[in-house]
Order: sequence, then C-alpha cells, then structure tokens
Amino acid sequence: MAVARTSPAAAHDLPATRLALLDEPLRLYRGGVIEHPVIAYETWGKLNAARDNTFLLFTGLSPSAHAASSPADPKPGWWESMIGEGKPIDTGRFHVVCINSIGSPYGSSSPASIDPRTGRPFGSGFPEVALEDVARGGFAVLRTLGIERVACVAGPSMGGMTVLAFAVQFPGVAQNVISISGAAAANPFAIALRSLQREIVRNDPAWRGGNYEAGRGPRQGMRMARKLGTITYRSHEEWDQRFGRRRVPDTTGRPGDFRAPFEVESYLEHQGQRFAAVYDANCYLALSRAMDQFDLAEHGGGALEAAFAKIKVQRTLVLGAQTDMLYTIDQQALIAEQLRKAGGDVEFHAFPSPQGHDAFLVDNARFEPVIADFLARVRT
Amino acid sequence: MAVARTSPAAAHDLPATRLALLDEPLRLYRGGVIEHPVIAYETWGKLNAARDNTFLLFTGLSPSAHAASSPADPKPGWWESMIGEGKPIDTGRFHVVCINSIGSPYGSSSPASIDPRTGRPFGSGFPEVALEDVARGGFAVLRTLGIERVACVAGPSMGGMTVLAFAVQFPGVAQNVISISGAAAANPFAIALRSLQREIVRNDPAWRGGNYEAGRGPRQGMRMARKLGTITYRSHEEWDQRFGRRRVPDTTGRPGDFRAPFEVESYLEHQGQRFAAVYDANCYLALSRAMDQFDLAEHGGGALEAAFAKIKVQRTLVLGAQTDMLYTIDQQALIAEQLRKAGGDVEFHAFPSPQGHDAFLVDNARFEPVIADFLARVRT
Repeated sequence: MAVARTSPAAAHDLPATRLALLDEPLRLYRGGVIEHPVIAYETWGKLNAARDNTFLLFTGLSPSAHAASSPADPKPGWWESMIGEGKPIDTGRFHVVCINSIGSPYGSSSPASIDPRTGRPFGSGFPEVALEDVARGGFAVLRTLGIERVACVAGPSMGGMTVLAFAVQFPGVAQNVISISGAAAANPFAIALRSLQREIVRNDPAWRGGNYEAGRGPRQGMRMARKLGTITYRSHEEWDQRFGRRRVPDTTGRPGDFRAPFEVESYLEHQGQRFAAVYDANCYLALSRAMDQFDLAEHGGGALEAAFAKIKVQRTLVLGAQTDMLYTIDQQALIAEQLRKAGGDVEFHAFPSPQGHDAFLVDNARFEPVIADFLARVRT
Repeated sequence: MAVARTSPAAAHDLPATRLALLDEPLRLYRGGVIEHPVIAYETWGKLNAARDNTFLLFTGLSPSAHAASSPADPKPGWWESMIGEGKPIDTGRFHVVCINSIGSPYGSSSPASIDPRTGRPFGSGFPEVALEDVARGGFAVLRTLGIERVACVAGPSMGGMTVLAFAVQFPGVAQNVISISGAAAANPFAIALRSLQREIVRNDPAWRGGNYEAGRGPRQGMRMARKLGTITYRSHEEWDQRFGRRRVPDTTGRPGDFRAPFEVESYLEHQGQRFAAVYDANCYLALSRAMDQFDLAEHGGGALEAAFAKIKVQRTLVLGAQTDMLYTIDQQALIAEQLRKAGGDVEFHAFPSPQGHDAFLVDNARFEPVIADFLARVRT
C-alpha cells in the first residue's frame, strides 16, 4: 500500500491530511466495490517502539480528519480542545490517527471522487457505503502504518456507531473503546429526520439525480437540510438560554415573512450556508443513508446480543447527553448494558448537558475529565 | 351581522360549518385590515335560556371547525372522542362552538379567500395574521350568536396560545379556561422548526412568491414541511414502540436510496401527501408565522407577569405532555405558575404520554377524565 503525502484533500485546505492508497479493490459491506480505494487520515503524536500507543478516532458526518491543529496545519480542528499535548487525548502519550470516512468529501473515496473511467465524479454511481466500510477504512490505514493493535478506538455521533462496527469486525485490535453519543442502530425518529433531510436535497432541481457538475450541486437543498440537522444537533434547553426570542435586524428581506428574523433563524442560516458551501451533496446522502441503515444486530444474525458478544474489548467508556434527541440517552444506555452482558468493563455517563447531540463538542467541562481519566488507565 | 348557512367551506366538504359574515372591517392586531371578514364555525348542543353554557373551542393549525360529528356532518371530527353527548365535553350540557381560525383555509377569511377587487385569492397580499385576531374571530362569533359570557374557553396547540390571547383581550368573558399543550410565546426551538418549514414551502418554485393559482400551489414543499411538522408532533418514545426499524416493500422507487424504506418513512409520506392535498400553502405560512410571533408579554408592555395579571379567570386547567418538544412541558408549567401568581385557581397536569405534542389527540385515557372532571365543576 502506498501512502501519498500530497492530497486532493488540499482542495479543502487540509495540508496535514495524508492519503492511504490501498493496492487492492475494497469490497464493500453491502456488495459494491471501490476499485482504487483511498483513505484520508491525519495523525498527531508519535508511534512508540512497541507500536501499541495508537488512539484511533472516527468522526461524525460533517468533519474532516483534521481533528486538531498541528505545525503542518495550524487551523483549529473539530475536537481541538480534546486532542494535543497535555490535553485529555494526550499527543505526548498517544499516536492519534483520525480517519476520514469513506463517503466523506474530505479526501477518502466517495461520490465526490473522480471516476477514472469518465473523468468526472462518481456521483450517484458510487456504491452504497456502510459504516462497516468506514471502519474498514480505518483498519486499512492501520495496516498501511504497520499497526496491529491500538490502545483505544473512539468516535462521537456517526463515529460512535463506527467504533461498534470496528470492534465487531476486528475483535482484538482495540482493547479500549470510547463510544460517544452513538447507537447500535438508528431509531425511527432519527431515521425520519435524516430521511427528510435527504429528500430536501434530492428535491432541489440542482441535484439532477445526483449528476450535477462539481461545485454546482443542490446548494439550496443542502442549506435547508443542514438547518434541520443543526436543529436536531442541539436542544430547546440550550436555545432558550442562548437565543430566547431575541431578533436581529432583517438584512435579508426574506419573502413571505413580515418581521425581523429571530436570532435563532439567523444562526441556522449561517450554519446552513457554511455547510452547503463545502460539503458535497452526494457524499451527504451517502453517509446519511449509512447511518440509517447501520444495525449492529446484523453481525449477530439479527440478534443484538449475539452481535455485542462478538465485541472483545476489555474496557469501554460510553458517554452521552440526556438532551440528545438524535442518539438518545436510552441508546447509550443500551450500548453500555449490552457490553456489560458481553463481559466487558463498562463505564457509562449520561450527562445533563443542555447542548443535545453536539454536547461532546462544547460541554468540555463534563466530557474532558471523564475521557482523560479513562485514558489515564489505558496501558501502552 | 349576518350568518350564512351555506358556505365556501363546502369546498372542503364541511356541511355543518356556518359562516359569520361580520358587517364591519376587522382591524388586525398587527395593523392590517380585513374589509369583509368572515369567520367559520361549527356548533354542537343547545344554548340554554341563560345563554351561559357555551364551550368556546379554538383549534390547532391543521384542523377545520369540524371538531366532532353531528347529524349535519356525520364525518368524525378532529376531537371526536372528546366532544358529544355524555363525552368529556358533554354536548347534552354545553353549547360547543368551535372556531375556524382567521388565516385557515377552512372557511374563515384567509389568504385563500377571494379578493373581491381581483376575483383571485388574496395570496401573499393578505395582511399579517396574529393569534390575537384568531381570538377576535371567536369573540365576533359569540356576538353574532348573542352570547356575552362563556362557561369555558379551550384550545390545544395553537389553540392553547389562542385561549391566552382571548383571555387577555376579553377579560370577564370566560370564567374557566383550558389550555392544552400551548405556550405564552414560542420558544426558539419551535421557531427554528417552523421557520424551516416555511422556507421549505417558499423554496418550492410552485410557490411563485405566494401568487400561485388556486389548487396549483407548492405541493412538494407543503408535503415536506408537513413531514417535518409530523416529526415534531410526536416523540421518539412513541415511534420506537410503533415503528421500530420495520420496513415496507419499496413501491415508490425513491431516487438516491438503495433499500426498502422504513415504516416511519412511509407513515411520514402519507401524512405529508394528505396535508399537502388539502391545505393552502399561503394559509399555512400565515398561521405558522402567527405562532412564532405570538408573545403574550406584548399585552403587559413586554412584561409577561403584567400580561397574565390582565387575565381575569376563576379557574384554569393547564395540560401538557412531558414528551412534547414543540410546546415543552416547561412552557405549560410557566402558564400555570403565572396564572397562579395572577390569583387564579389553577390545576396543572404534566402527563407522561409518549405521543409528544399530539398527545391530546390520542392519549384519551389521560386527557379525557381530567377534562371531564374539570368541566363537572363548571357552573352554568
């Protein structure tokens, strides 16, 4: 396997992102094949001589592998407060590897990748991606780097599902797992929300059945879908405190509305525009679907308990926010309960964070000490 | 004031709906004027000799004034289980009057009404509607019927806001109030959701700035907006039990999805299509905005406590579901607390119904006995 140091991820200004160019086609979990698979990743800290101090990190739907700043890319990463020298995920101790998901537009093989047969993006011709494939992408990067075991595998949100897909497919590779605001399977409420987001994108005439020109995708649909996402990532408790009913002067002249918008509307507009400007729509559809379809029980012949029994890890930390409407706290409790039944040592925290699903990104006061403490007891 | 017994509401097959044709222009709360106001309503039971047994009912956003069946219209109404002879709202005892909201397409003046100057619907030319106007529509119907005081005024959802707008504008008219899953003002989370719903509608090219031909409105936008509404009217708890991850055979061939849809997706599609087929888009925008803009504090010069102090009712019943994400249980508790401060006798129930905002429509076992008991102690 070859490792490239320059990257199409450069299109997203990700100078520290590397690409693992796999030398064999990747057979996907649901039947498709990627002929020339590429997995983007970023690393921090140093691999030790025993090659056993890797902290493998999977991401949520939205971010790239740029989880933290470094000399090669000083821009703050998506988990900047958590990763670094002396931080809870201490890069003085751990070799941190963050994986860009297959299906994501930030460098890994995805619908935005160029199909060498046509010279154009795969678009809707890209095969169905499963979170099992995202996990396999992480495993492939480990092999590329000559790593057989990791000290810990972790992920929030979609990454919290992916760590389960990793643990069940590669038993024994990780001795410690951190699952944050994830799920063993999406619940119907989350499915409903994501299904509608995808429909909003597909209904944008600019989607063109997935065959839009690069950069000319369904910007309006993506903007509105992201607004809905942002609504579900937070909670009414947080917004009561943060926005209340305050208004901003209306500079947009929205059609069909009579009065100055509320601050919360302006906030959503900002989030929607920012995401729609950078995230490829077909990639969004691919990973959104993958979350709905993910069901760990498939690895137990339909029985969840049998699937969890295949996960051989010593210690697991399961974290979530009580206000999370997308990956509910009951789903976190289920993961903890099932892993205990499977014989693991499980630590579970249901935080009263007001920030909903996104709490892991913002409620540092609660998440940081618990993760630091868990990792202090990880042997390397 | 004239009362018409035949009705444009017939277009919606509402044979029991009557129209009050007001003989003066209606000055709206936010400054507009309706030149020839019409308020649709439906009644059950008989007005007694003392003319003091009226139960005045306001509705949510979606339904017409057809709250229950009757010989004149045997179709089940939207609150069929609650209203009738021997039912909690006993038509053997009460003269029930359900008001179709100004702004709604089911007979009252609205953006779907024909502008006599053009012969076409007012559309986006209709003035801004406030819930204060919806309440005034109810008051106008009472005057039409020669009723000065009502035994009780009640409403769920948007109607729960409207009863507050009624009580603060017409003190002394109602001695008893039932506020169900309402609010003194929308919270930013509900505003975000409704704002996005409106944007989805406006983004449908068929909206045409509100100037579509009758029956040729933004059907796709309305369908998706209603899906989002339906998601927010329920709760993940209910859907876990009701749908889980069960699938239906894919008969729709949805573009961009690989697998058979989940049952919850099929349910949403049904709800979306049904609503989009009957509900005028400009009416939807009008009432959706009215809910966001409603703020009882305006009646107290910006102070909520001063506004509630103007509400002179003896007894209030405040009901809500703990799983309601749109009109949270904290908002119900606030109404109860403020009315108590204002000196009223308040009974408050926070039901553990799993059905979210819609619980009042389906959790009969909890809502019916409490309403029946409250009304048993109403003197007429």
